[in-house]
Amino acid sequence: MAVATQSLEELCINSIRFLAIDAVEKANSGHPGLPMGAAPMSFVLWNRFMRINPKNPGWHNRDRFILSAGHGSMLQYALLYLSGYEGMTIEDLKQFRQWESKTPGHPEDFMTEGVEVTTGPLGQGISNAVGIAAAEAHFAARFNKPDLSIFNHYTYVIASDGDMMEGVASEACSLAGHWGLGKLIVLYDDNKISLDGDTDMSFTEDVGKRFEAYGWHVTAVEDGNTDLEAIAQAIEESKGVTDKPSLIKVRTTIGYGSPNKANSHDSHGAALGADEVKATRDQLGWQYEPFEVPEDALNHWRKAVERGAKLEDEWNQLYGKYKEQYPEEAATLEQMWSKKLPEGWDKCLPTYTPDDKGDATRNHSGKCLNAIAEVVPQLIGGSADLSTSNKTLLKSSGNFQKGSYEHRNLWFGVREHGMAAICNGLATHGGLIPYCATFLTFTDYMRGSMRLSNLARAGVIYVMTHDSIALGEDGPTHQSVEHFASLRAIPEIVVMRPADGNETSGAYKAAVENRRGPTVIGLSRQNLPNLAGSSIEGTQKGAYILSDSEGTPDIILMGTGSETQLCVKAAEELRNQGKKVRVVSMPSWELFNRQDEQYRESVLPKAVKKRISVEAGITFGWHRYVGDEGIAIGIDRFGASAPGNVCLEKFGFTVDNVLAKAKQLLG
Amino acid sequence: MAVATQSLEELCINSIRFLAIDAVEKANSGHPGLPMGAAPMSFVLWNRFMRINPKNPGWHNRDRFILSAGHGSMLQYALLYLSGYEGMTIEDLKQFRQWESKTPGHPEDFMTEGVEVTTGPLGQGISNAVGIAAAEAHFAARFNKPDLSIFNHYTYVIASDGDMMEGVASEACSLAGHWGLGKLIVLYDDNKISLDGDTDMSFTEDVGKRFEAYGWHVTAVEDGNTDLEAIAQAIEESKGVTDKPSLIKVRTTIGYGSPNKANSHDSHGAALGADEVKATRDQLGWQYEPFEVPEDALNHWRKAVERGAKLEDEWNQLYGKYKEQYPEEAATLEQMWSKKLPEGWDKCLPTYTPDDKGDATRNHSGKCLNAIAEVVPQLIGGSADLSTSNKTLLKSSGNFQKGSYEHRNLWFGVREHGMAAICNGLATHGGLIPYCATFLTFTDYMRGSMRLSNLARAGVIYVMTHDSIALGEDGPTHQSVEHFASLRAIPEIVVMRPADGNETSGAYKAAVENRRGPTVIGLSRQNLPNLAGSSIEGTQKGAYILSDSEGTPDIILMGTGSETQLCVKAAEELRNQGKKVRVVSMPSWELFNRQDEQYRESVLPKAVKKRISVEAGITFGWHRYVGDEGIAIGIDRFGASAPGNVCLEKFGFTVDNVLAKAKQLLG
Repeated sequence: MAVATQSLEELCINSIRFLAIDAVEKANSGHPGLPMGAAPMSFVLWNRFMRINPKNPGWHNRDRFILSAGHGSMLQYALLYLSGYEGMTIEDLKQFRQWESKTPGHPEDFMTEGVEVTTGPLGQGISNAVGIAAAEAHFAARFNKPDLSIFNHYTYVIASDGDMMEGVASEACSLAGHWGLGKLIVLYDDNKISLDGDTDMSFTEDVGKRFEAYGWHVTAVEDGNTDLEAIAQAIEESKGVTDKPSLIKVRTTIGYGSPNKANSHDSHGAALGADEVKATRDQLGWQYEPFEVPEDALNHWRKAVERGAKLEDEWNQLYGKYKEQYPEEAATLEQMWSKKLPEGWDKCLPTYTPDDKGDATRNHSGKCLNAIAEVVPQLIGGSADLSTSNKTLLKSSGNFQKGSYEHRNLWFGVREHGMAAICNGLATHGGLIPYCATFLTFTDYMRGSMRLSNLARAGVIYVMTHDSIALGEDGPTHQSVEHFASLRAIPEIVVMRPADGNETSGAYKAAVENRRGPTVIGLSRQNLPNLAGSSIEGTQKGAYILSDSEGTPDIILMGTGSETQLCVKAAEELRNQGKKVRVVSMPSWELFNRQDEQYRESVLPKAVKKRISVEAGITFGWHRYVGDEGIAIGIDRFGASAPGNVCLEKFGFTVDNVLAKAKQLLG
Repeated sequence: MAVATQSLEELCINSIRFLAIDAVEKANSGHPGLPMGAAPMSFVLWNRFMRINPKNPGWHNRDRFILSAGHGSMLQYALLYLSGYEGMTIEDLKQFRQWESKTPGHPEDFMTEGVEVTTGPLGQGISNAVGIAAAEAHFAARFNKPDLSIFNHYTYVIASDGDMMEGVASEACSLAGHWGLGKLIVLYDDNKISLDGDTDMSFTEDVGKRFEAYGWHVTAVEDGNTDLEAIAQAIEESKGVTDKPSLIKVRTTIGYGSPNKANSHDSHGAALGADEVKATRDQLGWQYEPFEVPEDALNHWRKAVERGAKLEDEWNQLYGKYKEQYPEEAATLEQMWSKKLPEGWDKCLPTYTPDDKGDATRNHSGKCLNAIAEVVPQLIGGSADLSTSNKTLLKSSGNFQKGSYEHRNLWFGVREHGMAAICNGLATHGGLIPYCATFLTFTDYMRGSMRLSNLARAGVIYVMTHDSIALGEDGPTHQSVEHFASLRAIPEIVVMRPADGNETSGAYKAAVENRRGPTVIGLSRQNLPNLAGSSIEGTQKGAYILSDSEGTPDIILMGTGSETQLCVKAAEELRNQGKKVRVVSMPSWELFNRQDEQYRESVLPKAVKKRISVEAGITFGWHRYVGDEGIAIGIDRFGASAPGNVCLEKFGFTVDNVLAKAKQLLG
């Protein structure tokens, strides 16, 4: 029996293992194998390296820890509990995977203090970490002073085989290598087992060599189960490499300690079962009750509290000096941290009258971004290799690159999914408002991360141009049809589709102020007129009356984005024919739905049943607004390659078609 | 001037360049740079290697050519025209990017004979190619006989920097390396320019080393602009490597020949402009009119016709022998090629009565797949590392692996996007019906490829299990909420959500017979009862009456999938209270929408305004079916981590809640 010889370190490591085993067993659901295998590296990392303060999980310069392999969530909950985070008690651990507990199936940053990002969908955490490390590099380059390195933290990741297989991680890690993010250190839990069995079935590439190809520093620990010094040495070595991110391949045994299920997918995704739990207790010489942590181990772990207090205290003194010597920078920084925007920031947003020359909303967007960058220091972002088309370049800033991290223009390359995941990381780090851009259609590529922006409330601004068939010649592969519908379907999201210059400014006002989640702004490739009655204020309500006739309208025409002008023109014609017509501009369903009943009724009175919507996209979902008797004008098929104006005409986005449909309703 | 010294080969290569230049110029839209740079490698490939028959683009054993960098579409159209494909005339080239032309902005296989797959969204083509090469390997291993190699073709790809950056390509290429697909040869147009400028801005990894890490054979051509022999030698060498896919890095100059725009992103995505076109003509010594191909060059190119006829003729003789010696195999093969299913195949689908023990529809699905595999030789597929959860393993077959390509179980690893793209390739090759699987939520990861399944009409079957919050403990990152809505939004798609065993069989009947596009089948994790009245036939109509009361119903309850049972139970209770209730099972909106007006009215009569829908997903889109007066029961927020039955209860998916809503409507 190992009992007598169990060292304090072994006790500490086994504490993680058995908290995970016991919690999964109690829930009869979860993944014990990863925590059991990754316990040693986690112990070494948290015990010897992590600069955190358990009593203040929000300390700005804390090291970040990301469990990219989020299915091993009990590892993270055990670490938080053992390290003395007040938000994580033994009772919380017993509530693993139960309704409204702080210990959900996968780590969720909005449920649990100390969890930096929401992980679980594989590849996301490691990609978020690239964003977090980029944010650290940016803050350090922008704010640190000689001898006053107020930003100086590491971003540590534990990642799994699954993370390594996902394309989003490939994209983000390639970019991390390009950027040379030296403070990003990934421990790859190389256990050669995935849910389906041995990775020999599908994953035999040389991961280390791949990361070297990305420009990473790669090292390995041959025995990650017991060789704690080798783990420590690898982390130390990685910290010494300051111009490259580091990957440490740690060879481990999934389900380590389980006599019959270790090194097998049997320990991956299900409770071990009572018999095997007992056998594991025997094998590891664990004489404690479920959820019992030996006092020695707990005392040792809890030294993190004292260490953390000291670390933050030292930093506070450093920051005190900084504030004294650089009050202006400190003021900027504190404003950025506060999540508040500079007073009156929105005065920078341009406004237009119908006499102003029309323009594409993507151009209006470019002006907004540049104006905002001048007054909102948080703004940072870029495009997935379409900056010229997306109009996303900030003229007042240089390029964020290795050696020039202080700049705010990011170049993501053709890596949409990685871009969105990195932006989630930038948003999560604190102090930044990231934006990213591509054609609207390619939201399909990054939806995995966009969903997490919503779930984890990351305030990313998605600048999505070329938002319909009107993009023209590139054809159906590039033309959005279903994308507004499919994005509106995501819970919590705000989708904006501005009709002109004022509404584009309005969309940015909403997006910049929406710090509880992402905002998607759909923008036209083609020029659009500035409409009478459009406004920043109206846009905040999601839908508003652009023009009206006296009395109860005979018909309501509602449009979004580039098609709103068709409603305006059709209304003029109908009014000439003596009809009472209301035109409603509807840049955002979601903002409109948040208005009170009275406002919604004032814009779309229930009594007016004759309604037409016009949007160059699928009609899916419009029924809610046009009702049983209304007509939705849209395109319920894929687009086609032809000049944009030809596409619009062929697919019925014309004033004549709106008039024809109105006639159909009005008789 | 180079005129006098221009060799026949140069003339042939410049013919590609100027057809591309002229067509882009005429359209004033498109990407001339890639065709100009990739013309030499394309000439060498098509002139010396490609085994195709221009007079029969559908020849089964043709080499496949995939222009993954689809924005360079004029390269492909020029190749088709020059090689003598009858479907591509000089007039077609003049219609580049115009309405309904055969020369759309990006290659679309459904518009243009000779185009193998629809490309444009970067990373897709090269990933499709992995599927096509896998299909070739499968057919060869399954059907070839000693001395009768009826399947023996290569899959050639031209890919760009953008393709190399995309995660989907990383996933697919990692798997191609694992599978060791020796007949896949990728020419990487390494021109170091992307739309945003020099790749130094964002893409500095060592691509060759990365592909070596994947297990590929990697070679390079230093001068891809003029060294035709080096290109030929690299292809020859790659063909000699039979156990690994090959990447040939061909260093080229984008916009080669343009004095002011070569080697610059100025030649990437826009017409060169009249002056620069003239300057390019001068520089390359091109004395011909727009769209004029010198006779010598055309004659040389058109030798492809004779070569091709001979190649196919030889193959036909080979196949003749095969058919004689192996009539049974040939019959199977011809049935597979025919796109027809074996007569009465659907008799294999299991049926159930309410007395049969309930089960999860994912288990019913597993039984269907196994039953179908026995009678439908086309079926092939697998899961993204969730085969145990998705129930997708075919018991009658072994594993498709290097050295055992004849088997039909594919192991995709945790690579959802690559999986879907590979399945598009498998479907495109001809003769196969691919299926793939993961949790429904992770359709978000593969949406880029799923959209293309629809656009390009690839009949992939998407087996998407764990289709709601009822999956339980894994929590909101894994729980589908918006996914049915977001998928239904895609044009052409068929989404099925069967309620029990019969409907699962019905969903497979629809999916296997739907050879014009993909079918997504959403399946429950949890057990469900077999419902009275459910049927395979009813399922084909998308919605049908499961049970009814005499006369006009007071209320219609409609459900999909796992929630249909709630409607059934609520109806019983309401009938006990004397209400006339119709229960409609609605496994597929799309199939229902395709029924005639009369049938739709017979199921959902306009006169019955009191309607309730029940689906454990977002209510988005249901308004169309419940109408202005109806109620959609759904979940318009993210889910939560807790046991599945707790989630269902907490979010209102209970008979009591349906009854409460019915009371609200009925008074």
